[in-house]
Amino acid sequence: MAFGWIDEQARARHRAGLVRTLRARPADSPLLDLASNDYLGLARHPEVVEGAAGAARRWGAGATGSRLVTGTTELHGELERELAGFCGFEAALVLSSGYAANLAAVTALAPHGSLIVSDAGNHASLIDGCRLARGTTQVVGHADPAAVRKALGTHPGPAVAVSDTVFSVDGDAAPLARLAAACRESGAGLIVDDAHGLGVLGDGGRGAAHAAGLAGAPDVVVTVTLSKSLGSQGGAVLGPARVIDHLVNAARTFIFDTGLAPAAAGGALAALRLLRREPERAARAREVATELHTRLTASDLDAVRPDAAVVSVRAPSPERAVRWAADCRAAGVVVGCFRPPSVPDGVSRLRLTARADLTAGQLDRAVRVICETRP
Amino acid sequence: MAFGWIDEQARARHRAGLVRTLRARPADSPLLDLASNDYLGLARHPEVVEGAAGAARRWGAGATGSRLVTGTTELHGELERELAGFCGFEAALVLSSGYAANLAAVTALAPHGSLIVSDAGNHASLIDGCRLARGTTQVVGHADPAAVRKALGTHPGPAVAVSDTVFSVDGDAAPLARLAAACRESGAGLIVDDAHGLGVLGDGGRGAAHAAGLAGAPDVVVTVTLSKSLGSQGGAVLGPARVIDHLVNAARTFIFDTGLAPAAAGGALAALRLLRREPERAARAREVATELHTRLTASDLDAVRPDAAVVSVRAPSPERAVRWAADCRAAGVVVGCFRPPSVPDGVSRLRLTARADLTAGQLDRAVRVICETRP
Repeated sequence: MAFGWIDEQARARHRAGLVRTLRARPADSPLLDLASNDYLGLARHPEVVEGAAGAARRWGAGATGSRLVTGTTELHGELERELAGFCGFEAALVLSSGYAANLAAVTALAPHGSLIVSDAGNHASLIDGCRLARGTTQVVGHADPAAVRKALGTHPGPAVAVSDTVFSVDGDAAPLARLAAACRESGAGLIVDDAHGLGVLGDGGRGAAHAAGLAGAPDVVVTVTLSKSLGSQGGAVLGPARVIDHLVNAARTFIFDTGLAPAAAGGALAALRLLRREPERAARAREVATELHTRLTASDLDAVRPDAAVVSVRAPSPERAVRWAADCRAAGVVVGCFRPPSVPDGVSRLRLTARADLTAGQLDRAVRVICETRP
Repeated sequence: MAFGWIDEQARARHRAGLVRTLRARPADSPLLDLASNDYLGLARHPEVVEGAAGAARRWGAGATGSRLVTGTTELHGELERELAGFCGFEAALVLSSGYAANLAAVTALAPHGSLIVSDAGNHASLIDGCRLARGTTQVVGHADPAAVRKALGTHPGPAVAVSDTVFSVDGDAAPLARLAAACRESGAGLIVDDAHGLGVLGDGGRGAAHAAGLAGAPDVVVTVTLSKSLGSQGGAVLGPARVIDHLVNAARTFIFDTGLAPAAAGGALAALRLLRREPERAARAREVATELHTRLTASDLDAVRPDAAVVSVRAPSPERAVRWAADCRAAGVVVGCFRPPSVPDGVSRLRLTARADLTAGQLDRAVRVICETRP
């Protein structure tokens, strides 16, 4: 029977306690959210919401076509210029998701005969970019610039190193300045995914590359999402104008995809302008993360020191991680739960998001619940 | 220098006259659109726009996280149930784009050791799905069920055949019933991309699979976009509930992507309800396409008989196709222009979209301009 083999996989997932199911949330949930990537609490901010709603009214519910046909509105151009300007890059290209942006950047910049050096902890979308690209991928140890340098040194042709700036699972930062130095030694490009850095790291949330002094560098390309700190949907690639022009001509996930919906572009643009006006939001997200980490560690939980807004807390097993997250939810606090196969090292953990708009009372409640429900 | 090789590619594109540039359109363009994929003219319909704007207000500008963490709202569930019900399938899964939906379906349903039989004219997203999947891909001739049967007959393990239902370039339809029969003979699954069929083909726009009597079949999986006939953004996979459950657990572009923005889900849901209430829109899109084809052919243009809402007109060369499209635009009519490398056969063409809401006067004008500017 067609697709018969999936039933055996489903049974195996059941036996291992690894079944994933979707849980629909209501519009007005009483639960405290420490699981989303809405780091600045902007997804429901009135200005951002009106940015989205107003754009739908002015431009329509959809972009109506691919970006090269009818899917580029003046709103897309405005968002691209402001985003590039904010982060300190010459140009930007907006795509329908961060996943698509990573596939675009990696596939278009790693042609046949090139080498891609990829961090072992990279996000699935970067990994899929490596797999789709025509170049050859060499995976190196996590956050290891010396290994990147060594791998690049062996290759005579075009090469890129690829890394998250902030790793989603543990919230740790990549050694960007040293990665860039390793790339420059051999004339390689550096592609970094700043999905969890934009809006949180750098001056006023300008991102990890800006913080590392790499903004506007001719050999650095940054991808970001519009769906995390900017509370909307979509992704973007930032870099030199000649690289962005190349993507317009060569990146399949850009060329053959419908343009981002005007509402998503409008929401992201409103969030960007808000962040420009209220730069303290970025620092606040980092402060909340540090406080969360300090208090959980003081209670003897095994939490990783956060480099951005993600705080990772280790759990003894997948089953107990799932139970822990369920107990938190039952007590009114939603936390993320990462377990195999989503964790590269096989260690299950709770993943907590330190939103900039968490109040002191909410933070107290979160810490209390997480500690009281510990395995 | 990093990325140095892209400059030579840019020069080669210039020499070949194949440079692609983005052209931003204003909100109130006076141009007549025959280039978008807004087949039913719903992207700017007040109900659809309000569906999008209202959803942003009620649910926020973004989904805030991946579908398995915080990115599934009750609105997503509602859209999935209604979309599955409308098209006659047991279940549906909404993703952030049709591209992501195709990557999800093909990669999750073609495991290591399996065979994928792929039509030579398939869309880039299906091709990338094949390249990302762990199975082995065999490309067969365009719209050739006998070749599919032959390829499937040689493989002992799990297998799928993959095809567009309506091919984007020429607007021709795949022989779905015969493809399905070929798959059933060998117990293979059939995955079809109905991006250009939903809203246009089948009873009231229920799509190509519904028209072919394949809706709800246990061995058929359909992908659709929410960004064409439904005037919004996003994609979906439709199929048996057990297949959709499998995707929730195994499809990387579903698991590791932020959920579709509420505005996009709300816009698509409003469009779907409108189409249910006004099923004549689907037939009207087909009628406009047929009329466009008849009149262009009567003027001795080389147009392909349309099976859905896309009318393809051949041009003598890439340069003359580009000039033709530019002349149409100068005369107030926007048409699509496909040329290498976006056309599998190397033949450049104009690509016209027959929107259901084109008036008789607009159709007259479009035909006149296209004929008057012919190379």
